[in-house]
Amino acid sequence: MKRIKIIVAYDGTNYHGWQVQPNGVTIEGVLNQALTELTGEVTAVTGASRTDAGVHSLGNVAVFDTNTRIPPDKICYALNQRLPEDIVVQHSCEVPLDFHPRRCESRKTYEYKILNRTFPMPLKRFDTYFFYRKIDVSKMREAAQYLIGEHDFKSFCSVHTQAETTVRTIYELTVEKQEDLITIRVTGSGFLYHMVRIIAGTLLQAGTGERGPREMEEILNAADRAAAGPTAPACGLTMTGIAYEEGICGCMTGDAGE
Amino acid sequence: MKRIKIIVAYDGTNYHGWQVQPNGVTIEGVLNQALTELTGEVTAVTGASRTDAGVHSLGNVAVFDTNTRIPPDKICYALNQRLPEDIVVQHSCEVPLDFHPRRCESRKTYEYKILNRTFPMPLKRFDTYFFYRKIDVSKMREAAQYLIGEHDFKSFCSVHTQAETTVRTIYELTVEKQEDLITIRVTGSGFLYHMVRIIAGTLLQAGTGERGPREMEEILNAADRAAAGPTAPACGLTMTGIAYEEGICGCMTGDAGE
Repeated sequence: MKRIKIIVAYDGTNYHGWQVQPNGVTIEGVLNQALTELTGEVTAVTGASRTDAGVHSLGNVAVFDTNTRIPPDKICYALNQRLPEDIVVQHSCEVPLDFHPRRCESRKTYEYKILNRTFPMPLKRFDTYFFYRKIDVSKMREAAQYLIGEHDFKSFCSVHTQAETTVRTIYELTVEKQEDLITIRVTGSGFLYHMVRIIAGTLLQAGTGERGPREMEEILNAADRAAAGPTAPACGLTMTGIAYEEGICGCMTGDAGE
Repeated sequence: MKRIKIIVAYDGTNYHGWQVQPNGVTIEGVLNQALTELTGEVTAVTGASRTDAGVHSLGNVAVFDTNTRIPPDKICYALNQRLPEDIVVQHSCEVPLDFHPRRCESRKTYEYKILNRTFPMPLKRFDTYFFYRKIDVSKMREAAQYLIGEHDFKSFCSVHTQAETTVRTIYELTVEKQEDLITIRVTGSGFLYHMVRIIAGTLLQAGTGERGPREMEEILNAADRAAAGPTAPACGLTMTGIAYEEGICGCMTGDAGE
């Protein structure tokens, strides 16, 4: 028995999120089925980030156990032949049997993209949130500073969460603008349910002037979902990658991925 | 009777190109129908660039004549309400009745995007050409130099062309690389049928080393389609904009567009 780690990129537009559920096609479900077809074994992958419906990823991490004789680094090629074009495995390798993509310490990075112009741009409609109101990016940046570090992010968490603690650490949070595209990039130890989308929705309120940047402190202190801004739409959110602490869970072949 | 100019952005993935044809849905056909619904008049737009099936645009130009009382600069808003989300009008204004988007002197710019990495990236599948072989971008740049200027581009033109002359002028032709994305950007007085895609396919051959950059000169001199490389796939091609000579055809409201 071997444990295989895969790095998975997907366009989440047509999926009901990562996690298998009774109604609707999910990334996890499609991967399980393709692996069963490939290996002949009943397989259930375990994902690092259980992204929501409509959320994308450039490199989510998942593991599964198998007795297949396909060399670990070739599994990605064989698997991609059985996957639709909106899910592509970027890498596969063997990892220690005790590596767990959610329990091992990691830093996850997400990007939230806002297309800020008068009219929508068709080619950008799947992976950006179209927002036509005028935005002051410097105000968004100022507001973002208050969220960096270890905080209780209860105000930035959907009330439907099942998390035991709402304390999380944000290592980096930047807001960049290139022409009409604003990118919020956030790296953290982990994120609560809807946390990145609520951060995006609240930073947007700072950008439009609906809220002062300093209100972020009050919102954190309130520890109440109602204190923060709206949950920005899923389509603007992309999980860009996960970095694990070296030694815990790297690939055993010495190949660190893409 | 007024002549209205519109600037149209579209994702060409689901269309049989710009031009109305008996079988299949086209950008032109959808615009005509939306305009007829909006104005109550039978309307036929005239487009600047009759892009192929699967080719995209950030700003194609089209005109139509109308007696509508909707203010010219408001037509884009009303029209967008009747268009699908993969076609969005970016601007509308009144132009002189003698302005013709193909007959007036202009500079058109196209971008051909190549995603050069080991595995495809799902979110990029609609507007890039995935190409996994190693590419030397400096060789592509070297080859591109031979195509700049006025030349007979017969070798870079589909044999199905109906053009009277195959002489065209390329003002600029650049090849840029950002991470795994290679962008060929070309500006010219006009382009022959499939010309940009054949240029892209031939520059790629220079990039992989299949051809030396200097062969471009021989290919031009051959004046034979068989001398050039393959036609690169439509999905990588986006028409980014058209600039008309000032005074001929600018908007009469003094608003120059986006």
